[in-house]
Amino acid sequence: MSHLSLSHARAMDSQDPLRDFRDRFVLPPGVVYLDGNSLGALPRETMGRITKLVEKEWGRGLIRSWNTHDWINSSVTLGAKISRLVGAASDEVVVTDTTSVNLFRLVLTALEMQSGKSDVLSESGNFPTDLYVCDGATRIFDRGGSVKVVSRDQIAGAVNESTALVVLTHVHYRTGEMFDMADLTQKIHARGALVLWDLSHSAGAVEVDLNGVQADFAVGCGYKYLNGGPGAPAFLYVARRHHARALNAISGWHGHARPFDFTDEYVPAPGIRRFLAGTPSIIGNAALEIGVDLLLEAGIDRIVEKSRQLGDLFISLVEASCDGHGLSLVSPRCAQLRGSQVSFEHVHGYEIMQALIGDSVIGDYRTPDVMRFGFTPLYTRFEDIWIAAQKLRDVLKQGRWLEARYAIRAAVT
Amino acid sequence: MSHLSLSHARAMDSQDPLRDFRDRFVLPPGVVYLDGNSLGALPRETMGRITKLVEKEWGRGLIRSWNTHDWINSSVTLGAKISRLVGAASDEVVVTDTTSVNLFRLVLTALEMQSGKSDVLSESGNFPTDLYVCDGATRIFDRGGSVKVVSRDQIAGAVNESTALVVLTHVHYRTGEMFDMADLTQKIHARGALVLWDLSHSAGAVEVDLNGVQADFAVGCGYKYLNGGPGAPAFLYVARRHHARALNAISGWHGHARPFDFTDEYVPAPGIRRFLAGTPSIIGNAALEIGVDLLLEAGIDRIVEKSRQLGDLFISLVEASCDGHGLSLVSPRCAQLRGSQVSFEHVHGYEIMQALIGDSVIGDYRTPDVMRFGFTPLYTRFEDIWIAAQKLRDVLKQGRWLEARYAIRAAVT
Repeated sequence: MSHLSLSHARAMDSQDPLRDFRDRFVLPPGVVYLDGNSLGALPRETMGRITKLVEKEWGRGLIRSWNTHDWINSSVTLGAKISRLVGAASDEVVVTDTTSVNLFRLVLTALEMQSGKSDVLSESGNFPTDLYVCDGATRIFDRGGSVKVVSRDQIAGAVNESTALVVLTHVHYRTGEMFDMADLTQKIHARGALVLWDLSHSAGAVEVDLNGVQADFAVGCGYKYLNGGPGAPAFLYVARRHHARALNAISGWHGHARPFDFTDEYVPAPGIRRFLAGTPSIIGNAALEIGVDLLLEAGIDRIVEKSRQLGDLFISLVEASCDGHGLSLVSPRCAQLRGSQVSFEHVHGYEIMQALIGDSVIGDYRTPDVMRFGFTPLYTRFEDIWIAAQKLRDVLKQGRWLEARYAIRAAVT
Repeated sequence: MSHLSLSHARAMDSQDPLRDFRDRFVLPPGVVYLDGNSLGALPRETMGRITKLVEKEWGRGLIRSWNTHDWINSSVTLGAKISRLVGAASDEVVVTDTTSVNLFRLVLTALEMQSGKSDVLSESGNFPTDLYVCDGATRIFDRGGSVKVVSRDQIAGAVNESTALVVLTHVHYRTGEMFDMADLTQKIHARGALVLWDLSHSAGAVEVDLNGVQADFAVGCGYKYLNGGPGAPAFLYVARRHHARALNAISGWHGHARPFDFTDEYVPAPGIRRFLAGTPSIIGNAALEIGVDLLLEAGIDRIVEKSRQLGDLFISLVEASCDGHGLSLVSPRCAQLRGSQVSFEHVHGYEIMQALIGDSVIGDYRTPDVMRFGFTPLYTRFEDIWIAAQKLRDVLKQGRWLEARYAIRAAVT
């Protein structure tokens, strides 16, 4: 049997050590969902957990549940779980706010730590909101600092005596290209800057070793590969060696050393807890925990291995079946250099993706002409990959994208 | 029948135009819950709304629901509903993040608008997290600004040429004392400062007319009187006259003019939408909307009227039945000067409140010696007030607080 046949894909599914995890998710029948890197699917256990939280803990426990159900520590205990997915210690990660707010506060933290330096360096074409947030954060200091952007191959060389912090997205949202985190972190440190890694397209899907590479800061998203639901709380990481000096400018009660003393003066909590601020979303934390627990149960090594196989197979299938239709691979061919997604360019990428979505293969489109297919090893089957490639071929062959009138547009990355 | 009798309280309930709203909430049987100003109770409709959102919109709709279920606009449409509770226009309020983050970003906004001025003025003994956040926000500017605090009667007089912004909590969290928002806003403006009102203990319970008093900014909480659930999203208000100049330093994708163009440059959305930043909690928004809809259905005028009656009756009952036991009223006696809560001081306030909680009357305690009883007109009955006063009398009379061993402590205000 050909390694590009449906039976081969099915054989791979039957040998997949993660195959049983698909049933742990609710997936709409007949849909091939390749957009879990934008919004992860719903774990079956989530609804039960939310129901218990809402009906029992909120409804019956009311205010008492802050203690009796330990809501008060949920941001920290959940952070400790996520730390295991990203190579951090349990006291280096906390769940709070959104990725944007966390990035903002950590840029301020870094600028404060690096007095005398006022610039943030990033990659041109980085995930836009990262650039927007860095821009806003550097502007509020009256030091004349700004965000400098250079192409990815020039980043290490562009770090200079004004660079306080380098902000990089580990897996590029369009191309799926992955930075060599260890190498770049080392080069940036050697030139005197700190580094913050955005793990939004990494956590829960690719290997991340924050401690191993000596990363300073990181942020990440709860609603992509962590399957925490739309607008799930985000997480942040601060290396333990910085805990004594790193402050949270958004100094709210939840990050106070003794929040129930109700004193006028802010005293930051020791350690990672100081990076909390306002009252956390308790429903959000509970839903996210279900997603994280599933990943921990599956094991990140097996997830990474399957992610690479899914991507490799998809590239082979598309290139074999869609040859001559103007597609070109945007993502790295080598799985070790690639996140859990594969992107193809086509001059009519937008229309093609709309036709595919209309045909129940959900990927997404990113300007100017990139079709992006995300793989979530816990619920993406090899058979799904095969179907997606077939349908892509059909859409291209039949010129169906010309008549695509589907206006569904993926709203977030 | 005496106006302090149980039958009188019951008669008031039977004539209460809001009496049917109590059945719209889940309340634990046998509990008198007077802590809705810390965490509001669960509306009956909330679980169904969350279930639909999770199972249908997230589970089946997946990424498509950003458009098909209009998740993308939920922060703005919900803000428009809340605007009707606080006397604002529909394009002046948006739901986002936490109260702490919103306060932080608006302090930065005001400092940016008031170039040349660098101080924030507040009240000593204001809700602590407000002081903490203002402190953090003023520190990150290198202008030498800081937070000045004075007692509440000295606020207007303390505004000087360095004061960029005055941050005040409309209803004081301990005493329930309410500022004269119109008078103070006018005096602060006359001295050249802007004013931000924290409505956390006001919205949904007392009369607020942000436009009428010409307030500049406001923030408020979603999980107290708005009944949005633990850690519900918060809201913020920016007066329309400031929209052209007011910027959001936390400049994320959700506040961008064209978020789906994926350009490197941040262009703030016109109007209130620019105060959004990261991806909003969609579950959080949906749950909060149920709570807000209930308030709009009941009508804020009727809510305010009942709130005052509840407070007046509670003061009368407690003073009549607990005389000689060392209680003293902390809150204003005049209902027009009081939020929807009544506080009493007692040297053993903590132990007494623990005994009361053990006896199923849930209020809360605030250092050093304040017992706080919150009234939520949608579900607090006059009979509840009567029971609470009786049980407070019993605890005091029998000296039961001496043996209080209950360790339940209300965790948030």
